[in-house]
Amino acid sequence: MEPVEVTYLTDERGDGPAVLVEGLPGIGQVGKVVVDLILQEIPAEKVAEIHSVFFPPQVVIGDDGACRLVNNEVWRYRSPSRTYLFLTGDCQSISSEGHYALADRYLDCAERFGVTRVFTLGGYGVGHLVDEPRVLCAVTHPHLRPMVEMAGGLFATEEPGGGIVGAAGLILGLGLRRGMEGIYLMGETSGYLVDPKSANALLRVFARLTDLEIEADRLQSRADDMDNALEQVREFERSRQNDELPYFF
Amino acid sequence: MEPVEVTYLTDERGDGPAVLVEGLPGIGQVGKVVVDLILQEIPAEKVAEIHSVFFPPQVVIGDDGACRLVNNEVWRYRSPSRTYLFLTGDCQSISSEGHYALADRYLDCAERFGVTRVFTLGGYGVGHLVDEPRVLCAVTHPHLRPMVEMAGGLFATEEPGGGIVGAAGLILGLGLRRGMEGIYLMGETSGYLVDPKSANALLRVFARLTDLEIEADRLQSRADDMDNALEQVREFERSRQNDELPYFF
Amino acid sequence: MEPVEVTYLTDERGDGPAVLVEGLPGIGQVGKVVVDLILQEIPAEKVAEIHSVFFPPQVVIGDDGACRLVNNEVWRYRSPSRTYLFLTGDCQSISSEGHYALADRYLDCAERFGVTRVFTLGGYGVGHLVDEPRVLCAVTHPHLRPMVEMAGGLFATEEPGGGIVGAAGLILGLGLRRGMEGIYLMGETSGYLVDPKSANALLRVFARLTDLEIEADRLQSRADDMDNALEQVREFERSRQNDELPYFF
Amino acid sequence: MEPVEVTYLTDERGDGPAVLVEGLPGIGQVGKVVVDLILQEIPAEKVAEIHSVFFPPQVVIGDDGACRLVNNEVWRYRSPSRTYLFLTGDCQSISSEGHYALADRYLDCAERFGVTRVFTLGGYGVGHLVDEPRVLCAVTHPHLRPMVEMAGGLFATEEPGGGIVGAAGLILGLGLRRGMEGIYLMGETSGYLVDPKSANALLRVFARLTDLEIEADRLQSRADDMDNALEQVREFERSRQNDELPYFF
Repeated sequence: MEPVEVTYLTDERGDGPAVLVEGLPGIGQVGKVVVDLILQEIPAEKVAEIHSVFFPPQVVIGDDGACRLVNNEVWRYRSPSRTYLFLTGDCQSISSEGHYALADRYLDCAERFGVTRVFTLGGYGVGHLVDEPRVLCAVTHPHLRPMVEMAGGLFATEEPGGGIVGAAGLILGLGLRRGMEGIYLMGETSGYLVDPKSANALLRVFARLTDLEIEADRLQSRADDMDNALEQVREFERSRQNDELPYFF
Repeated sequence: MEPVEVTYLTDERGDGPAVLVEGLPGIGQVGKVVVDLILQEIPAEKVAEIHSVFFPPQVVIGDDGACRLVNNEVWRYRSPSRTYLFLTGDCQSISSEGHYALADRYLDCAERFGVTRVFTLGGYGVGHLVDEPRVLCAVTHPHLRPMVEMAGGLFATEEPGGGIVGAAGLILGLGLRRGMEGIYLMGETSGYLVDPKSANALLRVFARLTDLEIEADRLQSRADDMDNALEQVREFERSRQNDELPYFF
Repeated sequence: MEPVEVTYLTDERGDGPAVLVEGLPGIGQVGKVVVDLILQEIPAEKVAEIHSVFFPPQVVIGDDGACRLVNNEVWRYRSPSRTYLFLTGDCQSISSEGHYALADRYLDCAERFGVTRVFTLGGYGVGHLVDEPRVLCAVTHPHLRPMVEMAGGLFATEEPGGGIVGAAGLILGLGLRRGMEGIYLMGETSGYLVDPKSANALLRVFARLTDLEIEADRLQSRADDMDNALEQVREFERSRQNDELPYFF
Repeated sequence: MEPVEVTYLTDERGDGPAVLVEGLPGIGQVGKVVVDLILQEIPAEKVAEIHSVFFPPQVVIGDDGACRLVNNEVWRYRSPSRTYLFLTGDCQSISSEGHYALADRYLDCAERFGVTRVFTLGGYGVGHLVDEPRVLCAVTHPHLRPMVEMAGGLFATEEPGGGIVGAAGLILGLGLRRGMEGIYLMGETSGYLVDPKSANALLRVFARLTDLEIEADRLQSRADDMDNALEQVREFERSRQNDELPYFF
């Protein structure tokens, strides 16, 4: 088995300019929730499956009792104006070397379909519940910044401090080395729970940066569900003020 | 030394359809106990030895003072109707990449002998002692499910949640990619102790899914021993109700 | 992606004898602070960038919101008498194998530019604040010792005990195998904080061993800032005498 | 750099039958102390140096301030009757894969010099101070057992339970696969301290199994030193009966 195996489900390639949208599992599952929501709304087709020795040695068991190996996937959608690729799936690498090897292969796949711009979507964990989650941003090229700010994205000089570890940043950093433009959108989130509210805020900014038409109604009802869920967590927090909150992913 | 070394002890190959039965060390040693029990009952012959840099750098010392490197083994038994291969041994990989590399080579070995169906046997740790251990199951193809249920296996939609990490799941997941059918049997177990009672429950379901003839009497006496051992543990638990139970493997 | 990628920004090579000065992040950031200070004072040019799968999978976000992958860099400065190469950057390896692979490639780069002598600069953590940090030293060849002692470096037979782990020592050790002379300067530091005071002590010894002209005034003002910062830390320590001090890097 | 680099300091090879004696750092440093003692008593010459990316990325600084990379070494001594190779040095691997890769190369080196029998010397940690340390043994072939027992080595069916992790066992296990005979001598030791008393017990058994002439007097004085050191530790233990003893290596 190769360290990273990309199985293409189509022989088609692309001249671009196409867009890659990454939403892998991570803090608050924010990026994954956004991409999974989008894929429910648009008629995308799966164009690649990725298996890797850098993924956990794990199978997922479905409700029908059928199991399958964890993997990531690339889905393609052709909007009226351009081609979108969506990278989502079950996992990130569990080693540093694996992160690099995988990001490199994700970008090979992106190049095959003509990608020139990359969006990476993730969460920005702040350690406490957030009522109105902001969407913090970073870009590979300063000229992208005004566009992102017009869409509602924030650039905070002190956040995130230090740097950001994981697939989203790495895809941007390695994409930059290949000449791709990149935009990193991070939904503020507690980090404790799957956070669809943060995902919703992130989705609004993201949607303004693309020509994807996503039905706002279905999303709003999900956002309401999130508010209810959030309220329950808040009560839970009030009731055990002094206890350490467990980490749910 | 190659990362994984498979030494074949026979030049014979197989056209199949053969069956692979995996029972490596793991939670409660359930899978290993079952396969070791079966190998005591049937005249199987060893057909392959596996050494790997992904195994712990460990020797095992026998009662005669003779030591040998830890390794896994494949044993072959030809029942009247078909060929069985049994994978058992001393260890699983201690790294994620190693898990993938080893599972891949186990399946190479399986293909060499014509395997088209894989049983993986393991424990399902629930964290407390279990009087009547259930046998939870997963399959690679939904059409296998009725057969497994008729044999007494359960499919519980909420268990095991998330996914399952280790050799048993990985062999199934990677086998599925090679076109093999797979059945995963997990004996419910505390996870604290080697659990022959769970192994016994697992063996009963497994036996109904094969034409292996295993003497029930010898197994029953082992099951009784387990009950006695379990009772001792239970007394031990009562006596130190508030202490943390150690993990024995 | 190769495990270590060195991108040369010049086709020039060097016959030497050139000098390599390593100041990567580490204990108290002492080595990095020194090399970064020097690079602010002299008109050096960047001659190589190093990316590696052994670095953390991390991007750094600048004040302008632009992000880039972590990397290390080699800068070149030609003094009247010789060529200096400075190795600095964002990170060290996060695995042992990575440390060896990276040090090996740093030395390939050094050889390309004709390096015959290596200075590695680092911190020597003592676990408590130090008023007058000493500069402890090691050399690859005993004949280098008198020169280092004349410059103010100390050789303490009991410090550092055992050995020293990390890039600085490894570059020296592997350089020795290639026939390079090496001098290791370690500024005594608490290890709790970025320690410019230790860096200043280190810089003084280092400057005496080279013909680099660095404006002492700017350094003195930095040293005064350090004293003030140190005083604040000391007060902080006094106020919470019995608490454990956090580790800042 | 190759993962493991063996530098031979002689072009000579050997037809054997030669003996390899391994004494690398480990529990109580027992094996290393024995081999280092022997090398002080006999006129051996260094025939190979081993460097590896699997060793810690560490330099050792000598009393003269000169530093060198950690490494292992092979020394050769020709007694009247046969050739002995001694493997000693600074370190063991810090990863499991590294243990296998290194043991494999140690055995390549052994084969080059005609080794047909391997002694591996180590400590057997029991967690408490031992007045009269036993020497526990294992062998690769049962026919070696009587000889070892006649020399004072013990075979205890319950000790060491489970198995033994590290270079000593692995060299034996991999050597067995190459057809080499192997004898594993383990000096009982607390595991807390460098334990020359255990080393002395081990040396006595080992010496009876070879024709090496080692001056007993020098060893006895070392053993007395050990007794004194042990007594100090015992007092230290009495004085802080309820504290956890730190681990010194």
